[in-house]
Amino acid sequence: MTRPTTTPFRVGIAGLGTVGCGTVSVLQQQATAIAKRAGRPVEVVAVSARTRDRERPVALDGYRWVDSAVALATDPAIDVFVEAIGGSDGDAHAAVAAALAAGKPVVTANKALLAEHGTKLATAAEAAGVALRFEAAVAGGIPVIKALREGLAGNQVTRVSGILNGTCNYILTEMRATKAPFATVLADAQKLGYAEADPAFDVDGVDAAHKLSILAAVAFGVQVDFAGVSIEGIRHISPVDIDFADELGYRIKLLGMARLGPLGLEQRVAPCMVPVTAPISQVDGVFNAVAIEGDAVGSLFLRGRGAGAGPTASAVVADIIDLARGVVDRPFGVAVADLVAAPRAAQERQRGSFYIRLMVRDQPGVIADVAAALRDEQVSLQSMLQRARHPDDAVPVVLTTHETEAAALGRALSLIAASDHVVEPPRVLRILADA
Amino acid sequence: MTRPTTTPFRVGIAGLGTVGCGTVSVLQQQATAIAKRAGRPVEVVAVSARTRDRERPVALDGYRWVDSAVALATDPAIDVFVEAIGGSDGDAHAAVAAALAAGKPVVTANKALLAEHGTKLATAAEAAGVALRFEAAVAGGIPVIKALREGLAGNQVTRVSGILNGTCNYILTEMRATKAPFATVLADAQKLGYAEADPAFDVDGVDAAHKLSILAAVAFGVQVDFAGVSIEGIRHISPVDIDFADELGYRIKLLGMARLGPLGLEQRVAPCMVPVTAPISQVDGVFNAVAIEGDAVGSLFLRGRGAGAGPTASAVVADIIDLARGVVDRPFGVAVADLVAAPRAAQERQRGSFYIRLMVRDQPGVIADVAAALRDEQVSLQSMLQRARHPDDAVPVVLTTHETEAAALGRALSLIAASDHVVEPPRVLRILADA
Repeated sequence: MTRPTTTPFRVGIAGLGTVGCGTVSVLQQQATAIAKRAGRPVEVVAVSARTRDRERPVALDGYRWVDSAVALATDPAIDVFVEAIGGSDGDAHAAVAAALAAGKPVVTANKALLAEHGTKLATAAEAAGVALRFEAAVAGGIPVIKALREGLAGNQVTRVSGILNGTCNYILTEMRATKAPFATVLADAQKLGYAEADPAFDVDGVDAAHKLSILAAVAFGVQVDFAGVSIEGIRHISPVDIDFADELGYRIKLLGMARLGPLGLEQRVAPCMVPVTAPISQVDGVFNAVAIEGDAVGSLFLRGRGAGAGPTASAVVADIIDLARGVVDRPFGVAVADLVAAPRAAQERQRGSFYIRLMVRDQPGVIADVAAALRDEQVSLQSMLQRARHPDDAVPVVLTTHETEAAALGRALSLIAASDHVVEPPRVLRILADA
Repeated sequence: MTRPTTTPFRVGIAGLGTVGCGTVSVLQQQATAIAKRAGRPVEVVAVSARTRDRERPVALDGYRWVDSAVALATDPAIDVFVEAIGGSDGDAHAAVAAALAAGKPVVTANKALLAEHGTKLATAAEAAGVALRFEAAVAGGIPVIKALREGLAGNQVTRVSGILNGTCNYILTEMRATKAPFATVLADAQKLGYAEADPAFDVDGVDAAHKLSILAAVAFGVQVDFAGVSIEGIRHISPVDIDFADELGYRIKLLGMARLGPLGLEQRVAPCMVPVTAPISQVDGVFNAVAIEGDAVGSLFLRGRGAGAGPTASAVVADIIDLARGVVDRPFGVAVADLVAAPRAAQERQRGSFYIRLMVRDQPGVIADVAAALRDEQVSLQSMLQRARHPDDAVPVVLTTHETEAAALGRALSLIAASDHVVEPPRVLRILADA
């Protein structure tokens, strides 16, 4: 093992928001324990941020201030560059690329950066013979990147799925608890600081998709393919769907799901119906969770805090300690040349079970027409529910299907949606029986 | 990073039962993927077991047979010694000690060995500058040792608890499902191969205690102190307690719990009442789970298969791949000199909430006497339940307490047990509200 030394491992941190300050705080508070685990002192020596004069929750006076993140990234007086700026491009990208080009290892919490440029950055890290670590980019404090890259390295992982966005999970949990509509709960979440002023990245599923594409790369040894993720957010989820889910024994969760199989690489972020008996259905509020299927290990399930200063810093600092111990490994577990450019599974060939909610005029023959359209496309029904009868109003009719081809269901729904009796576009949610 | 090489990493495996053969099988089946992850081929070259001529589920013809485990352990033609013999002493101990003395890294699945000799073996590994890995010793396929030692290395871990014995969890799950008594369910479990012919190590809590002492050492950086674990098994759990647990909103689980606090190191294996809302209460059958509390990460929860060829081999092979990649680390995360010899928390000072079941003669004044005894010891009651009235028979009375000192409760129960109205020794189970 690396012999303990008193030579400090010098850390430079760019970005002093939640992640950057959280990292400083953990490195300060646990300095003694961290030195024992790393076999040497781990010390912040320099920091950088856009604004210098700002109230921050940690003392920074002992650290050299560097105005430019890129300058810090290539500073000869640091041993690792921690990128906590955020964003897929701009300063974050420039600084990380500069650090790697200068042969400096990088630790980042930046999922957008990895999702957009992961394979290229891994190539740069490999060329320079340095590590690029990103445990904090996915699922906050849950050490899932390490679990996949190292802990399950003997497995062929066939599926990875999870609750990867705490904002969406909080909103869906609150919608169920309060029966309030999406817009009301979102506004409350914004007031409480659980959702951003511009919530699009979270509620439209983009953030979860960033994380899913990174998970898939590590789990399956494929190139990061964020553009290949099919993305659907939660804006259209309504209290009536949440009620029906309860009645049918499900919870609605925004799930990321990636699967590598005969059809190719399937990557999807979408609100799904999950059976209440599945562990993931019980993950509420701002918690994240990841479920993994491996050929040797079977089912593995990890649950923890997905955001916030403490959990994110926990992940950043774990990466820093590994590097301080002298570990130099490949960003995605295998050499970039061995990362497969997996073909995308054609959407329409993908199969699944579905929940369908129609708003129909309550007239004789409507259900028969709907059933006939589904039958003609070989879509087999599992259940049908009609909540109430209102001869003059539209009423919800809910159908659940057995496993079927998504394309066939799509054709049947086009026909159904065109009917005069159907007054709103059908709402469709995937049912994940084995989530 | 270590440059990819074609020089194989040579594995010698002693013990060819479930774990040994499972390891061979994973190394054979995933050879190509493992070579990419390890950066070099990983090849079994030699094996050893007590009996050579026995039907085994994997082909062993390509491997050199070594009669003695100790001889294999020091064989110059292997790069890592995998100990899958089992047992805290005898061949397993001798072979592991010999390997380390010869400067050979060791991977073991042997919890009894680590629980009894962990600190000494870690000292030997450190002196030789080689790794001693034991992911498979705790919670099967769940990479919890790696999570604690590396993934949470920035945290002060304050508590670790879990379902660490699949046999007990299976029995408790079946008892609840079938309402059958312990002995019946145990006999069925033995027929199904979920329990050993001699089930004592499992059902008396020893196996869980072995694992708990290892978890505590890694989580808190303390010396392994198996002798300091307070152990209670599940033989005395009766269907009536399981019924009352349901009624009160709990499940009965055999939990290992370790906590490092002002009182010292608390390590306990005991059947506990866990609220149905806690994730750990939903872990049924042969699954294992570990819940971790860290100051930065908050609550982390890991669930997976705790035994069997696949999950155990998944853990063994992950350790082998780390070593093949060139990782050399400290067995418990810090140097042995930094492992604290934590004082044991005095049993009687420990606090908790408790479930108490009394079998009493249904006569006026009984409850008043019981309540008075508890009041005199400052034990505060949370609830009281009496199931049925049978003037001639003993009836169960169940009490739950608020948090109280264990010693005070013990004194009150001694008084209560001595009463003529109380016809059986009181049954006491800890309630873990925050499991």
